[in-house]
Amino acid sequence: MSLKPLILVTNDDGITAPGIRSLVKIMNLIGDVVVVAPDSPQSAMGHAITVNSTLHCSKVKIDSGPQREYSCSGTPADCVKIAVNELLDRRPDICVSGINHGSNSSINIIYSGTMGAAIEAGIQGIPAIGFSLLDYRLGANFEPFIKFVKLITENALNNRIPQNSVLNVNMPLVNSKKEIMGIKICRQAAAHWVEKFDKRKNPMGKKYYWLTGDFIDNDGGKDTDEWALSNNFISIVPVQYDFTDYTMIEKLNTWGFE
Amino acid sequence: MSLKPLILVTNDDGITAPGIRSLVKIMNLIGDVVVVAPDSPQSAMGHAITVNSTLHCSKVKIDSGPQREYSCSGTPADCVKIAVNELLDRRPDICVSGINHGSNSSINIIYSGTMGAAIEAGIQGIPAIGFSLLDYRLGANFEPFIKFVKLITENALNNRIPQNSVLNVNMPLVNSKKEIMGIKICRQAAAHWVEKFDKRKNPMGKKYYWLTGDFIDNDGGKDTDEWALSNNFISIVPVQYDFTDYTMIEKLNTWGFE
Repeated sequence: MSLKPLILVTNDDGITAPGIRSLVKIMNLIGDVVVVAPDSPQSAMGHAITVNSTLHCSKVKIDSGPQREYSCSGTPADCVKIAVNELLDRRPDICVSGINHGSNSSINIIYSGTMGAAIEAGIQGIPAIGFSLLDYRLGANFEPFIKFVKLITENALNNRIPQNSVLNVNMPLVNSKKEIMGIKICRQAAAHWVEKFDKRKNPMGKKYYWLTGDFIDNDGGKDTDEWALSNNFISIVPVQYDFTDYTMIEKLNTWGFE
Repeated sequence: MSLKPLILVTNDDGITAPGIRSLVKIMNLIGDVVVVAPDSPQSAMGHAITVNSTLHCSKVKIDSGPQREYSCSGTPADCVKIAVNELLDRRPDICVSGINHGSNSSINIIYSGTMGAAIEAGIQGIPAIGFSLLDYRLGANFEPFIKFVKLITENALNNRIPQNSVLNVNMPLVNSKKEIMGIKICRQAAAHWVEKFDKRKNPMGKKYYWLTGDFIDNDGGKDTDEWALSNNFISIVPVQYDFTDYTMIEKLNTWGFE
């Protein structure tokens, strides 16, 4: 039996996206890799899972390398569930998700399929990291970040991410490795989107909408992921999935319900 | 102009579900109601939003009452975004989501479209409550809970839910009002699903899966939503959407990244 760590790789841009292809290459340097990823783009699917429909998985060969690969019909969180509970022979030592084409910093984590998969792995008790690059383009250059993705993953394997926590890693848009200022441990910036709906009419004259919007960061803190990224640092935000607002419990107890 | 609060009502079971019909009736007792809800079931969609496709909304009349109603093609979170930014003339004073047919307690919050909508309202700066009843059946009896849903909503309007927090209300399965023990402010139980995939073959002999599983609560705390519900209390968990695990930041700083 291999002594190498078993690494589950997934994403939300789909199994053929350049971001996951880069991630697979990096993970092949660290351990035994199994890819279980969506067969189509699943961006902004958050933590959606498939309960009212069926799931399909096919063993596939996308490119060269020793990794085993499955293409699945579901969401990123579905992929993790079916990988861990059905497709893998043993529990993975770590799950890495990405590399996402585009940011999952700040409030974007909540809409993110990349982080949906990482958090699902965490819920399953598997250490997990989501990686995202602030470049939406298909031709995004992942090369300057190879060293960092490898370092963060190896560090997580060695130091062990505690139960109930996963890592949200975002990488700045740079032209070359030299511009990367290093890694910063951050909190999630209190930023949000101001939505706009682009109204159009279809050929039959019926109105429809495209969701667009502006990202507004009024947080101002220098300990946030947004600050780190805009200063060319790689941000790491530790993420929990106990959503209880403990400070609010005390306040609610004064509302006279009990 | 009306002095009554403007109440945005949404859900994830779809605009015709009995749960939202009950919620609309209750909200009509409190304020001016606008319904913006999915045109089809969106269970387990979590915080998914529609970014790679178009959105459609139609003004509809589902049943009697003074409420204004829109049926939308998107997810619950989409419904809140388009309601607040496009369909409503002014900002709602509160957003209520549900009443969901089925539990959204414990870790189920993360998969919940009901709570996806409530959290999206919170992100938009609107006080929000998700209501769920532990009864998956279409014929679920919401009647025993009318008084409590009204009380909690009025209390939230009067006391004001602070920014960055929304309420996750779950209601136990009871036969009559008398069995309800009251309301408890709780934390999210540290419970999880053990997934099973029901394997089948389609008529062409190709394998497919249905996601099923068992819900395992080993938390044991008497301050959790699961404890409250199994003792016939209505649980209220205050929920935050800053997902940063602050206790983990310190630990990560010892990993030698910076």
